[in-house]
This record gives sequence, structure tokens and C-alpha cells, in this order.
Amino acid sequence: MDLFADTPEPPFYAVIFSSMLSRDSDGYAKMAEHMVALARKRPGFLGFESAREDGFGISVSYWPDEASIRQWRDHLDHRMAQKMGREKWYSAYRLRVARVERDNRFEAE
Amino acid sequence: MDLFADTPEPPFYAVIFSSMLSRDSDGYAKMAEHMVALARKRPGFLGFESAREDGFGISVSYWPDEASIRQWRDHLDHRMAQKMGREKWYSAYRLRVARVERDNRFEAE
Repeated sequence: MDLFADTPEPPFYAVIFSSMLSRDSDGYAKMAEHMVALARKRPGFLGFESAREDGFGISVSYWPDEASIRQWRDHLDHRMAQKMGREKWYSAYRLRVARVERDNRFEAE
Repeated sequence: MDLFADTPEPPFYAVIFSSMLSRDSDGYAKMAEHMVALARKRPGFLGFESAREDGFGISVSYWPDEASIRQWRDHLDHRMAQKMGREKWYSAYRLRVARVERDNRFEAE
């Protein structure tokens, strides 16, 4: 699967999720993978990009509007994963919702 | 240094830069470090977060407005680094400019 999200012409929305894992990461990788698979099936899902290095990760998911972001936020399985994240997996996170206004691409020849 | 950007209350701007390194990464790490140090001194700079995993990285820099983003984009040293990036270091990238509208935080107790 392509690591880059194949997003459409702006405007659209980005959820920028930065997180630091706690020392108790048991079950995290499996749940994270499951959540991405579930997000991909949600109405309006536009794409996902992610990287983690020494416990600090940035994941960006892309959506057409704020309504689709709210719907995904409130999905029952996602709610349970969020709760587990706060109780167990994350020592800290930031979640920023942003409206993408410009999009530039480069591919080496 | 804190890995999280200590951004102010929204609205502000995010530059979401996703990139895949090429096989020729000679000099990349040093230049990337230099660019972050230089960005931190730019007027209006609000913060920076970054992670790279198996060559695929996401860096997000935060700015108060589009004017400060343009000024940093057009900085001479940064222009030279961008050129090197396209000619040598990156096999592909996406650069998305977004207006942050909401910001949620979590810190484990």
C-alpha cells in the first residue's frame, strides 16, 4: 500500500495526531492497525499517513469535512480504542484538526 | 527538547510535509537538522514535530499565518535545501498547508 495519501484537490480536512507511547505498549500495534483498517471503510475517508520513531509518532488522516471527522471520532470501536489509548498506551498526545488549503507534490524522475 | 510543539490557541497554520527518502541520503540528516534550527529562528515560528520510519517521514511545522510560511519557504538557505531535496534526497513528497481550527491535548497522570 502506498505510504502517501492520494488526497483530492483542496479544500479538505486533516486530523494531525501526534503521540508518545507509554512503556506499556502491549496490544497497541494490533489495535492501531485495526483502527486504520476501520477508518479506511468510513464514509468520506480520503487517506492516511503515519510514521513513528523512538516512541513518538505522527499520524495524519484526511477527510472531506468536519462531519465525517466527528462521525469517525464517535464510532463505537474507535471510542473504545481512544479510551484504551488514554488509560494505557499514550503518555501524551496532541490532536489538531485543520483545513487543508494547498497541496504540492513531488515525484523524482 | 520536547517532541511536541507547544502551539497556541487556534487558529494558526500547519505545514504537513510527508516525504520518502531516496537511497542517496548522504548529507540529509545534517541539512535537516540545520533547517529545523533555522526555522526555529524565523519570525512567527510556533513549533515543529517530526518522525521518520523506514524512510517515510512526516514533519509538521506550525506558523501564525500564511505570510510567515511564505517567508520561510522563500528563505535563501531553505530554497537551496529544497533544491537539494528534489535533486538528491527525496524520491517523493507531499506538502500540505492547512489552517488548524481545533487543538486537543492529553497528558497521562
